[in-house]
Amino acid sequence: MIVVMSEQASADDIQGVETRLAELGCSVHRSQSAGHVILGGVGPSTVDSQDLTSLGGVREVIRLSAPYKLAARAFKPEGTRFDVGDVEIGGAEVVVMAGPCTVENEEQVESVAALLARLGVKIMRGGAFKPRTSPYSFQGHGELGLKMLRTAAQRHGLLVVSEVMDAAHLDLACDYVDIVQVGARNMQNFSLLKAVAKANKPVLLKRGPAATIEETLLSAEYLLSGGNPRIVLCERGIRTFETATRNTLDLSAIPVLKALSHLPVIADPSHGTGRREAVVPMARAAIAAGADGLLLEVHPKPELALCDGAQSLLPDQLDTLLTQLRAIAPIVDRRL
Amino acid sequence: MIVVMSEQASADDIQGVETRLAELGCSVHRSQSAGHVILGGVGPSTVDSQDLTSLGGVREVIRLSAPYKLAARAFKPEGTRFDVGDVEIGGAEVVVMAGPCTVENEEQVESVAALLARLGVKIMRGGAFKPRTSPYSFQGHGELGLKMLRTAAQRHGLLVVSEVMDAAHLDLACDYVDIVQVGARNMQNFSLLKAVAKANKPVLLKRGPAATIEETLLSAEYLLSGGNPRIVLCERGIRTFETATRNTLDLSAIPVLKALSHLPVIADPSHGTGRREAVVPMARAAIAAGADGLLLEVHPKPELALCDGAQSLLPDQLDTLLTQLRAIAPIVDRRL
Amino acid sequence: MIVVMSEQASADDIQGVETRLAELGCSVHRSQSAGHVILGGVGPSTVDSQDLTSLGGVREVIRLSAPYKLAARAFKPEGTRFDVGDVEIGGAEVVVMAGPCTVENEEQVESVAALLARLGVKIMRGGAFKPRTSPYSFQGHGELGLKMLRTAAQRHGLLVVSEVMDAAHLDLACDYVDIVQVGARNMQNFSLLKAVAKANKPVLLKRGPAATIEETLLSAEYLLSGGNPRIVLCERGIRTFETATRNTLDLSAIPVLKALSHLPVIADPSHGTGRREAVVPMARAAIAAGADGLLLEVHPKPELALCDGAQSLLPDQLDTLLTQLRAIAPIVDRRL
Amino acid sequence: MIVVMSEQASADDIQGVETRLAELGCSVHRSQSAGHVILGGVGPSTVDSQDLTSLGGVREVIRLSAPYKLAARAFKPEGTRFDVGDVEIGGAEVVVMAGPCTVENEEQVESVAALLARLGVKIMRGGAFKPRTSPYSFQGHGELGLKMLRTAAQRHGLLVVSEVMDAAHLDLACDYVDIVQVGARNMQNFSLLKAVAKANKPVLLKRGPAATIEETLLSAEYLLSGGNPRIVLCERGIRTFETATRNTLDLSAIPVLKALSHLPVIADPSHGTGRREAVVPMARAAIAAGADGLLLEVHPKPELALCDGAQSLLPDQLDTLLTQLRAIAPIVDRRL
Repeated sequence: MIVVMSEQASADDIQGVETRLAELGCSVHRSQSAGHVILGGVGPSTVDSQDLTSLGGVREVIRLSAPYKLAARAFKPEGTRFDVGDVEIGGAEVVVMAGPCTVENEEQVESVAALLARLGVKIMRGGAFKPRTSPYSFQGHGELGLKMLRTAAQRHGLLVVSEVMDAAHLDLACDYVDIVQVGARNMQNFSLLKAVAKANKPVLLKRGPAATIEETLLSAEYLLSGGNPRIVLCERGIRTFETATRNTLDLSAIPVLKALSHLPVIADPSHGTGRREAVVPMARAAIAAGADGLLLEVHPKPELALCDGAQSLLPDQLDTLLTQLRAIAPIVDRRL
Repeated sequence: MIVVMSEQASADDIQGVETRLAELGCSVHRSQSAGHVILGGVGPSTVDSQDLTSLGGVREVIRLSAPYKLAARAFKPEGTRFDVGDVEIGGAEVVVMAGPCTVENEEQVESVAALLARLGVKIMRGGAFKPRTSPYSFQGHGELGLKMLRTAAQRHGLLVVSEVMDAAHLDLACDYVDIVQVGARNMQNFSLLKAVAKANKPVLLKRGPAATIEETLLSAEYLLSGGNPRIVLCERGIRTFETATRNTLDLSAIPVLKALSHLPVIADPSHGTGRREAVVPMARAAIAAGADGLLLEVHPKPELALCDGAQSLLPDQLDTLLTQLRAIAPIVDRRL
Repeated sequence: MIVVMSEQASADDIQGVETRLAELGCSVHRSQSAGHVILGGVGPSTVDSQDLTSLGGVREVIRLSAPYKLAARAFKPEGTRFDVGDVEIGGAEVVVMAGPCTVENEEQVESVAALLARLGVKIMRGGAFKPRTSPYSFQGHGELGLKMLRTAAQRHGLLVVSEVMDAAHLDLACDYVDIVQVGARNMQNFSLLKAVAKANKPVLLKRGPAATIEETLLSAEYLLSGGNPRIVLCERGIRTFETATRNTLDLSAIPVLKALSHLPVIADPSHGTGRREAVVPMARAAIAAGADGLLLEVHPKPELALCDGAQSLLPDQLDTLLTQLRAIAPIVDRRL
Repeated sequence: MIVVMSEQASADDIQGVETRLAELGCSVHRSQSAGHVILGGVGPSTVDSQDLTSLGGVREVIRLSAPYKLAARAFKPEGTRFDVGDVEIGGAEVVVMAGPCTVENEEQVESVAALLARLGVKIMRGGAFKPRTSPYSFQGHGELGLKMLRTAAQRHGLLVVSEVMDAAHLDLACDYVDIVQVGARNMQNFSLLKAVAKANKPVLLKRGPAATIEETLLSAEYLLSGGNPRIVLCERGIRTFETATRNTLDLSAIPVLKALSHLPVIADPSHGTGRREAVVPMARAAIAAGADGLLLEVHPKPELALCDGAQSLLPDQLDTLLTQLRAIAPIVDRRL
C-alpha cells in the first residue's frame, strides 16, 4: 500500500494515516517525492484501500497487490485443476456443458441427454430453480426438475450442473447435482456464497451482468476463503448500451482472468449473445481465446422452449460446432 | 399483445402462434397489414412476450401493456401512501432517512441519533448486515448492530431502516427495524423478495446498479404479488463508463417511475455519487425532480468511518441541506 | 508525476524511466517505499502519463495534477463569466436557451421567437446543420435555416445559438450566430475544435454521449489552448444500458465539473431524457444541482416537428417551468 | 411500417397518421387488433420511424425493414468483395493489416515494414494524423508521416492504410494511402463521411466507442449512398463499465454484422483491449468468430512507442500469432 499525501497535508494528517496503517497491521515507511509525502505500508495483502482514502490529507492510495489473495494467479501459478466424476476441469481437455435452459418435462430431458451422450458431451445443464425477472414467468420445477435431470443424466452417464438460488435449497440440490451453479444475478449474494463455500461440491460461478473482473474474483475469494477450492468461473455477457445482442459477451475477460487468477474460466455464449446465429461463432471464439470450456443451451425443439428458445442451439448445430471445436483446440494446446 | 408475423411465415407458423396465444389464455384476432399477418391477442396482462418471440415465423411481438400489473400507475392512479409510525411515505411531506453507512459503536449511533432528532429528521438508517465486495472487509455487527441502532433510535424518537441480506435473518431484523431495506445487489434476489413479501413490514427496495426501470418495477411486482403493498423504491445510481463518480445517479428515473408506477420513489445521492461535494447538490436536485424523499449518509466523523466515509455528509452540511430542501419542497407542492 | 516501479524492476528499467522523465522536462527524485522504488518527477503539468506506463518495470503512474491546465478550477478560481450581447454566462443569472430542435420554416421560427420574447427567454436555439444518424433523415436547411433563425431572433431582440458540424461552414455560421455550438458527436472532432478555437465567438461545447468528464475538459482545453476562453459546457446525457430514456442525464456531472473547472455548465434535459414528461422535472433538478443554465427544446406544435417532437416542450409547459425556476434559483444563490 | 395506435386515439389522431404516412410516400391500410387501430404503411424503406412516433395517439411504431438499404445483407446477399492492389478484402483470404500506432521516424517505419514483408503481411497501418484526447499529446507528423509510411511500404511491396481526420486533408492523404481510415471518434462525423464517400479510395470505417451496430451500418450507408461501395467495417471495442481493459472488444458484433450486412468486417484487438497479453487471444478469437481480417499494432520497441506502446505486439508475438491464424482459418473456411 502506498499512500500519496496531498501537498496541503498537515503533520496531523500524516500522523493520522500512519496510525491507521499501523492499526491495519502494516509497518510504515515515510518518504517524500515531487513535493508530496509518501507513506509506504507493508502488511496483509487484504487491507481495504477504502479504509484509507477518506482520511484527512490523503490524495491517492495505491494498492501494491490485488485485493484478493487466494484467487490470485500467484497463489497457484500452475493453475487450478480438479475432477468432477471422470471429467477434469481446467486441464488439457476443453469441457462442454450443455442442455436446456429449463427442465420442462421428462421427454425433453431424456431427448437432450441422449443427444449429449451421442455427441460425446459429458456434463448436462438444466435449470430447476429459475431466477426470472417477472413473478409471472415460469419459476422452474424445483426438486422435481432436479430429479428429472438426474434420472436422465444417470441413464446416459452424464454429470449434472444446475443453479441454486437460495441457501435453503442447497442441501437438497447437492443430492442431485455434481456442480452447483451460482447464477449471474446472485454473484454478489454474499449469504449464498458463504453457504456454497461450505458445500462439498464444485461451484460454477457466473460473472454478474454488471460485475467487473475484479469483483468477480472477489466473489470467488468468498468461496475460496470459505473453504471451497473447486471453482470454475463463467463469462456470460455484461450489460452495455448495445441492444442487438442480449448481453455483450466479454471474451477479453478470458485472457485477463487467466492472467490474474489460477481459476478455470468457461464462457456461456448462449446467454452472452441471446441470438442463435451468434452462439456458434462465439463458442469457437471463446475456445480460440483460451477458455477452459463452454456452457451451451441446446434444445430438441427450441421454438417450443419455455424459456430462452431464441438462443438455444439445434441438435445439428451443436454437432457441427463440436467438430469445429475439436479442430481449434489443438491450436491452443487443448483437446476435445 | 400484437404479434407481427414475418412475410415468409407459413400457414403452420401462423397456426402455431394462434395456438400458443390461446394456451396463454388470450382470445386471438387475425388481420393483415403491409404484407404481414398480424395476430392480436387479448388476455392476461402478464403474459410473457418471450413465450412468443421464438415461435416459428414471428417477426416482432409488441406488448400492449406493461409486464407488471400491481406496480403500474393504472392500478392505483392516485399514488401509494402509507404510514410508518407517525411518518407518511408518499404523502405531501418529503421524507428524509439519514444515518451512517455502517453501525460502528454505541457512541457513533447515539451521536448521529441525537443530531437527527435535533434537525427534525425522523428516520435513521444504518447498516448491520453489510454486503461487502471483499470477504476481508468489515461485514457489519449483525444483530448487535441492530440492537444499537434500535436503542439509540428509541431514545430519540426515531424510526429505523436497515438492510436485510438473507431470508434467514428476516425475522430477527423485523424485531428491530421499522422498514426493511432490500439492497441494490439483492434487487433480483428473488428468494429474498419472496420472503420479504411475507414480512409485515414496509420495504425500501433499491434499484440494482445494472437494473432497468422495468426490471425494478418487476422486482416490486414480486413484493406486491407476494402480499406486501408498502413499498418505497430507491434510485441509488447505475453503473456506467464514468469513473469520476462512484455510480451515475439517474435522477430521470424519478419522473419516469412516477409516470409508470404509483409507488413512492426516493433517491440516495450518497451511494449515487460517492463524493461528498456532489451529495448536497444532487439531494436538492432529487427533490426538485419530484422525489418523495432521500436516503442520506451522515457521520459525525466521516474520516474515521469504517465504510464509505468519503461520501458521508458532515453534520453541518446536513443542517444546511435541510434548510435548502425546506425551501425547494413547496415549489414542487411538497413540504418538509 | 509519481512512478511506482515494480518489485522486479532492474537497474536499467529504473534508469530508463529517469531518462524519459528528464526528456519530458521533469526533475527526478528517487526514493523507496514498501519494497518499491518510487520516482517523483516535477515538471510540466501536461506530461502524458501514457508516455511512461509502457516503459519496462513500471507498475503504476500517478498523475499529481489534472491533464488539463487552462480548464482547471485552479487556473481561475473565481470562475469564468463572459457576456454574449447583454446576457452574462456564468454569472448570477441562470441562462435559458430555448427553441426548436430544427429550423423548419419562417412561420415556426417566428412563432417560437415571439413566445421566447414574451416569456423573457433571451437566447434562441435552432438547428440549421443537423447531424443525423441516417443519411435519409432531414439534414437541416443550412444557411437558409441560419438566416431564418437570425431574422426571427432580431425581430424579437434574441441572441442565437446554433450548431456547426464542419470547419468549412464556420465562417458562414459566425455571420448569423452569437454562440457556436459544438455538438455531442463532434466533441472529439479535434479538427473542428481547433477551428472553433480561432473563431471570435463564444462556444457551447456539448459532452459526448460516451465522454468522461475528464475527456470533456480536455476537449475544452483544445479550445482554451487554441485561444478561445469563452466556453460554456453542456451536459446532455450519456449512453447507458437504460432504454426508458433516450440518454441518461448525468446531473452529477454539474457539481463535479464545477469542482474541477472554472467553466460555466448548463444542462440539456430535452436530449438528455427524450421524454417530454421528464424534461420539466430534470430542468428544475439541473438548476437545483447548480447549473448555470439550460438548453431546452420548445416547439409550437411538437406533434408536427421534423425532428425530436417527442421531447419538445409545449409553450405552456415552458411558461410553467420558468415560473418554477424563478423560485428555485434564489435557493442556490442565483436568479432568473 | 406498422403503427399501433393507442386505445384512446381519436378519429383525428388516426387521420393525422394516415396523412403523414401518405406524405412519406406510403400506401396505407387500416385494420384493428386487440382493441387497437393498426395502420400498415408500405413505401420507401428509409422512412424514419421517428417521423411518426410523436404524432398524436401513436402508441408504437414498428419498422418492417432496416433503416439502411444499401448496407443491408439483402442488397448484396453474396457479400461484398473488392481488391486493393493485389489484396482482396472480403474474400477467402483473411487480411491482416499491421503496423505502429503512430509513424514516429524513418527508422521505425522501415523496421516495421521489413518485418511485415518478412512475415507475409501485405497491408501496413500507421498514424500520421492522430486524434488525441489531450491537445498536449503528440498529434502526429501529418504529411511527413504519410510520406515516410509510403516510402517504407513501397520499398517492401506493402499497401498502406492511414486515418484521415478532416475533409481538408483528404486529397493530400489520398496521394499516399491505399485505404482511407475513418477513426472511431469520427464515425458520426457526417461531414467527413460525405467527403470520404466521394474519394476514389476504399474506406476502413471504425465503429465508434459508443455506437450501436445499427448506427455503424447507418454511417456505412452515408458512404454507400454517397457513392463509395468499397467499405470494410472494423470492430474496435466499445465503452463499458469494465476498466481492466481499455475497451470491451465486442466480438459478437462480427456475426451480427455479417448477418445484417454484406460488408466485410475486421477486428482491432489492439485498441479493443489495450493489453498486450490479451491481443493474441482476441486476434485468434476474432478469426474464429468469422472476421474477414485484423488490424494490429506492432512495434519493434513497444516500450519506446510514442503512443499506445502497452498494446503493441512484439515482432515475435506477431510471428507466432500468424502461425496460429493460419491454422484456424481453414476451420472457418478461410485461408491466410
